[in-house]
Amino acid sequence: MATKRISDAVIRRLPRYYRYLNALEAQGVESISSQELGTRMGVTASQIRQDINCFGALGQQGYGYNVSELKQYIAGVLGLDRRYRVVIVGAGKIGQAVAAYPTFRQQGMDVSALFDIDEKLVGKSLPSGAPVLHASLLPQYLKEHPCRVGVVATPGAVAQESADILMAGGVKAIWNFAPVDLKVPAPVVVNNVHLTDSLYVLLYMLKEKDMELGVVDEVE
Amino acid sequence: MATKRISDAVIRRLPRYYRYLNALEAQGVESISSQELGTRMGVTASQIRQDINCFGALGQQGYGYNVSELKQYIAGVLGLDRRYRVVIVGAGKIGQAVAAYPTFRQQGMDVSALFDIDEKLVGKSLPSGAPVLHASLLPQYLKEHPCRVGVVATPGAVAQESADILMAGGVKAIWNFAPVDLKVPAPVVVNNVHLTDSLYVLLYMLKEKDMELGVVDEVE
Repeated sequence: MATKRISDAVIRRLPRYYRYLNALEAQGVESISSQELGTRMGVTASQIRQDINCFGALGQQGYGYNVSELKQYIAGVLGLDRRYRVVIVGAGKIGQAVAAYPTFRQQGMDVSALFDIDEKLVGKSLPSGAPVLHASLLPQYLKEHPCRVGVVATPGAVAQESADILMAGGVKAIWNFAPVDLKVPAPVVVNNVHLTDSLYVLLYMLKEKDMELGVVDEVE
Repeated sequence: MATKRISDAVIRRLPRYYRYLNALEAQGVESISSQELGTRMGVTASQIRQDINCFGALGQQGYGYNVSELKQYIAGVLGLDRRYRVVIVGAGKIGQAVAAYPTFRQQGMDVSALFDIDEKLVGKSLPSGAPVLHASLLPQYLKEHPCRVGVVATPGAVAQESADILMAGGVKAIWNFAPVDLKVPAPVVVNNVHLTDSLYVLLYMLKEKDMELGVVDEVE
């Protein structure tokens, strides 16, 4: 699919479009106007039209957008129409949550194995069927089962080392849950889910709101 | 603590400062120049000085910043110097991961209970000691144990309903892991961890990189 280069701001909004279109399709909605989609998403109709224009999809003047077509189009832009074999480093709660995440599989992500050093976890199979293997086996595993996507769900202290092993084994995209910023060379892409950062922002918002409303700093 | 209103862009950067200062303190580093901190964080020294000025902390010209003081100061700005009683709705993998997250407890978040409708989970106690109670008990629980922070870790279809019960029970800040945008009235704050959105952005980055490098779209 040929698309023009899309700005980062629009890219960050695309997943949200995809989520809404997915939900609309599930509800049996066949077509939707930019006005109605904007109302649901809490943005203006003009923003919707501008974004959708920007990534090159065609609106049908007067008829609105065909929900399934637009969803498929965005899936193509995002690369959700491909399948990816995935390994997860770290089989703790977060690694397991990612392995079990239903959307993950629906979006073409096949988790082939998890890796950990915890002997209580190694040798288990998760409900998804993916085995937990010892972390020392990861380099050999990647030689035998090339994977393009790797998840880092380890403690911060070993996250960079884990990423280095993934990259040495040919992984090209890293989804990082460790609370550190990974150093990756230019041909590799990384996206972070920094849970602590998100929590800190929430607590800050709460504190600001308290100050605004004159709530006394309570000890609970 | 009196601070001037800080721009959203700086707020989004603050947690990252906090993470780096935390790591530096753990490594025994006592003071650091804006130059050195900038190098570690991958931003310019001038950006560092500007941000730290902006939230009102004092740099010491020629001596750099005292790591522990600056960390404590940022903790105060973010509201990390308070304790919060927390309930989690949804005791699946993600709810459990949040309950077990070590940083959560360190940052003053006491998870007092999780709520679920899954009979296999209800009645259990997690390793952290927090019990899993039936979701129908949530309104009464909040009356008896006022909580200001709630985590929504349910499927998308029941996320809004869960948030509504939390808010009716007095919760003021919601950390949302469900893949929907919650509607909350103005006095309540919400911050989302949309895992699917983050994954979609990663896959898009990978696809873009493939196109840039001329990698053929592989079926794995």
